[in-house]
Amino acid sequence: MTAPGDPVSSVFLTDFYELTMAQLYFKNGLHENEALFDYFFRNYPNYGEHQAGYCIQAGMACLTDWMNKARFGEKERDYLSTLCGRARTPLFTADFLSWLGREARFERLSLRAIPEGRVVHPHAPLATVTGPLAVAQLLETSLLNHLNYQTLIATKAARIKTAAGDGQTIDFGLRRGQGEGANAGARAALIGGVDFTSNVGVSRAIGLSPKGTHAHSLVQAFMALGGTEEDAFAAYADLYPDDCLLLVDTVNTLESGLPHAIKVFEKLMKKGHRPLGIRLDSGDLAYLAVQAVHRLDRAGFPDVQVVLSNQLDELVIWQITSQIRTLARQAGLDPDAVIGRLSYGIGTNLITSKGAGALDGVYKLTALRDGTAWKPAIKLSDTPAKTLIPGDKQVWRIYDTRGKATADVIAVADEDPFQTDNLVLHHPFEHGVRRTLSRADIREKEPLLVPVDFCQPASSLERMRQQRAADMEKLDPGVMRLLNPHIYHVSLTERLLRRKNQLIRSVEKNQ
Amino acid sequence: MTAPGDPVSSVFLTDFYELTMAQLYFKNGLHENEALFDYFFRNYPNYGEHQAGYCIQAGMACLTDWMNKARFGEKERDYLSTLCGRARTPLFTADFLSWLGREARFERLSLRAIPEGRVVHPHAPLATVTGPLAVAQLLETSLLNHLNYQTLIATKAARIKTAAGDGQTIDFGLRRGQGEGANAGARAALIGGVDFTSNVGVSRAIGLSPKGTHAHSLVQAFMALGGTEEDAFAAYADLYPDDCLLLVDTVNTLESGLPHAIKVFEKLMKKGHRPLGIRLDSGDLAYLAVQAVHRLDRAGFPDVQVVLSNQLDELVIWQITSQIRTLARQAGLDPDAVIGRLSYGIGTNLITSKGAGALDGVYKLTALRDGTAWKPAIKLSDTPAKTLIPGDKQVWRIYDTRGKATADVIAVADEDPFQTDNLVLHHPFEHGVRRTLSRADIREKEPLLVPVDFCQPASSLERMRQQRAADMEKLDPGVMRLLNPHIYHVSLTERLLRRKNQLIRSVEKNQ
Repeated sequence: MTAPGDPVSSVFLTDFYELTMAQLYFKNGLHENEALFDYFFRNYPNYGEHQAGYCIQAGMACLTDWMNKARFGEKERDYLSTLCGRARTPLFTADFLSWLGREARFERLSLRAIPEGRVVHPHAPLATVTGPLAVAQLLETSLLNHLNYQTLIATKAARIKTAAGDGQTIDFGLRRGQGEGANAGARAALIGGVDFTSNVGVSRAIGLSPKGTHAHSLVQAFMALGGTEEDAFAAYADLYPDDCLLLVDTVNTLESGLPHAIKVFEKLMKKGHRPLGIRLDSGDLAYLAVQAVHRLDRAGFPDVQVVLSNQLDELVIWQITSQIRTLARQAGLDPDAVIGRLSYGIGTNLITSKGAGALDGVYKLTALRDGTAWKPAIKLSDTPAKTLIPGDKQVWRIYDTRGKATADVIAVADEDPFQTDNLVLHHPFEHGVRRTLSRADIREKEPLLVPVDFCQPASSLERMRQQRAADMEKLDPGVMRLLNPHIYHVSLTERLLRRKNQLIRSVEKNQ
Repeated sequence: MTAPGDPVSSVFLTDFYELTMAQLYFKNGLHENEALFDYFFRNYPNYGEHQAGYCIQAGMACLTDWMNKARFGEKERDYLSTLCGRARTPLFTADFLSWLGREARFERLSLRAIPEGRVVHPHAPLATVTGPLAVAQLLETSLLNHLNYQTLIATKAARIKTAAGDGQTIDFGLRRGQGEGANAGARAALIGGVDFTSNVGVSRAIGLSPKGTHAHSLVQAFMALGGTEEDAFAAYADLYPDDCLLLVDTVNTLESGLPHAIKVFEKLMKKGHRPLGIRLDSGDLAYLAVQAVHRLDRAGFPDVQVVLSNQLDELVIWQITSQIRTLARQAGLDPDAVIGRLSYGIGTNLITSKGAGALDGVYKLTALRDGTAWKPAIKLSDTPAKTLIPGDKQVWRIYDTRGKATADVIAVADEDPFQTDNLVLHHPFEHGVRRTLSRADIREKEPLLVPVDFCQPASSLERMRQQRAADMEKLDPGVMRLLNPHIYHVSLTERLLRRKNQLIRSVEKNQ
């Protein structure tokens, strides 16, 4: 937090009830029973009128980093021992606190997960946690905190990248993020498809070059001291002759900023340098971009980039490029050439996932070991979509004869759903809705949940980004549509559906 | 970040352009010129259809904590020295890096700010930073990051508290916040009016009791092992007899959860303990709350709390309590008695400020010292509301004869606006819009910007909360309205307006 008072112990990145529940399991002798929790989400982010058709998994390496660091040390146990209930007696007893210090180590848990950067869908577990019930319970809050937010942002970034096409995209969100959580957001944005970030700390941690231009204050400072916008630009060009990117809207974009930038670029050219670009940060960005390209072309700068910023998101970028297609032709320019020169700085709407500021991911107990036998766990709900899918599972991605992903099938962990000629896929909660795939329909199938070795360094960001690109290549374009995407099929196998229905009946009987 | 790779140096919680600009100031001999930056926002958060009518300032103590910690040490300078531009030559030179290590210390800056917990409004500076231009520039990103988010969340919390009335409010947002930024959110929520948080780390840092109930997994675990919901409740009551708060919707709220809770409460009573409450987390919360109170009353538990959770925000709480007023009467209950037993756990919609995920606060250069004289700095804009108010300023809050705050007046720092019999208040950007206050209209006036001593411990959270309550007491109820609030007056003095207009004319002349 960087708050007044003591710094926040990392193990206390948790809701209080995880601790009171852990003690209850301990006191009832259940704490070491092996438990299985699923992490999954129920709904794609819905940004106002437009809902995503896929998500991009992210955050696991940050979670495992936390797991490796978080400890119930003496200081943490001392604090817990001071907490009292309404009766002013301690809530936590010495035997539990001693167990907490000794045994509540997160490396006792086994994780499986769909790797970061992969396309993921609702209902299917994106991660599963196996281990002592109390320890797995204690992981809940941190797991949700790390995975929900990063998956949310990686998804938004993938959509923005889709809208931007070949245009470079840069995360500018640090000033509008949630405190230091903005660092996690920048990382997730990079996994999701944004090319660079202005965030220096994250660029350094990840090994990318940080990017940026300059602020209005630079021009204002020169002008306050009696100089001009052109003087400020000239100073920038002088210091960064090969990286000269000028913000042209401090005074007036077309009347002042752009002419001044062109003058400065001409001098740079004479000295043998290639100017890099201009940035437009206000006004009608489509109109200004076309005007700027027109004037830059005439001035002999056909390669200078045009960076757009100011409240961009995937729909605004889509709107701007559509508008440019019209305006460029009217100005006698090749629309593709104009669009090809654009870069995008995306701040607030990326780092806050505007319109859908949270992923509804949950962490649910789905099985518990009783002696040697696993007992499936369920939670009923009046909303069928909220009734849990019990027990240990595997998620299979099925590719059709075109090589496109056609369904994610949730199966019982130890079943091979592909031994049949006709695979019946059941809707996860709509009764009777099914689809049959014959062997000939399936080119390939792939298990998605793989073990997480959280003592090993995570795979590189570059690999996660390649994974994302490869997965999106295999998505039907309809699923990637920004508005009203095709609904991707997530299904249960026959055997898993039977298990779920049996368990529902047995719970209802015992009510 | 808790990311793979190196941990993120705190001083690198910054956008890259702050560093390239700082070097430019250095190379042009401007880096030590005394500069003045204002922090302010232009628009109240607008949560979809409903816009706030005030904000609550928060975040300063976290910013000053960062300022005290952030250093350009050898490791940081080494990293910067490796960064290259397109020409593959280093971007930062040794002389600048040496200055950075030696002189770019944030304690060289002077801050004034409206204290945390106070009601604040747009356009008026909420904080001002004075000091060497390059150092003040380097503060920009971190300042915006800390103040924007916390002010956003404190504001949302104040609205939620307004809707909840005397009902206890608890932040449950950690699992849906932006990574560790959720800690900053919990702190801000507490400043803004939420009573408690489930976040253990923040509760500990701040010295409050963390709060919580239990999760569905507790009931599921007992049921998976052949037990019942009632067994789970009994185990909870056994362990926490004086703090027994049971989540009743794992199976079925009215058919199972509530009857089981009542049975367990009866046993607790017999042992001399007072049960604490139940939690409703799904379904029609208003209907279920009335039903629950009805049955709890009949069972002899007129004091048991009813905690509501599940996608709450200020409008949902308002809607629920309105609906309860109708339903309670139909059930023969006193609506106020039902509402008086409610507590609220607010997660996602608080920690993400649903509907308005960012405050648009900016940090703008407004004056620069040239030798001994201050030169006001301005940024023009086609949007009048975006043209800066130049120079050093003070913000005065004026209270009317009822003792209610009636206007915030932005004045030149060294003027006393109250020496006239008729104070003319000018709209900050709408030409010709003014209001006159006579001496008799003004009961009290108060300067809001006060020096920040960031080497001293911040004032306590309790004091900030008292400040918030006191300020809200002095707000007109119309300004606090959740929908369509009255617009609070923020104005300029005659002298400040003249200064602004003069500067605009001089810039336009020199274009």
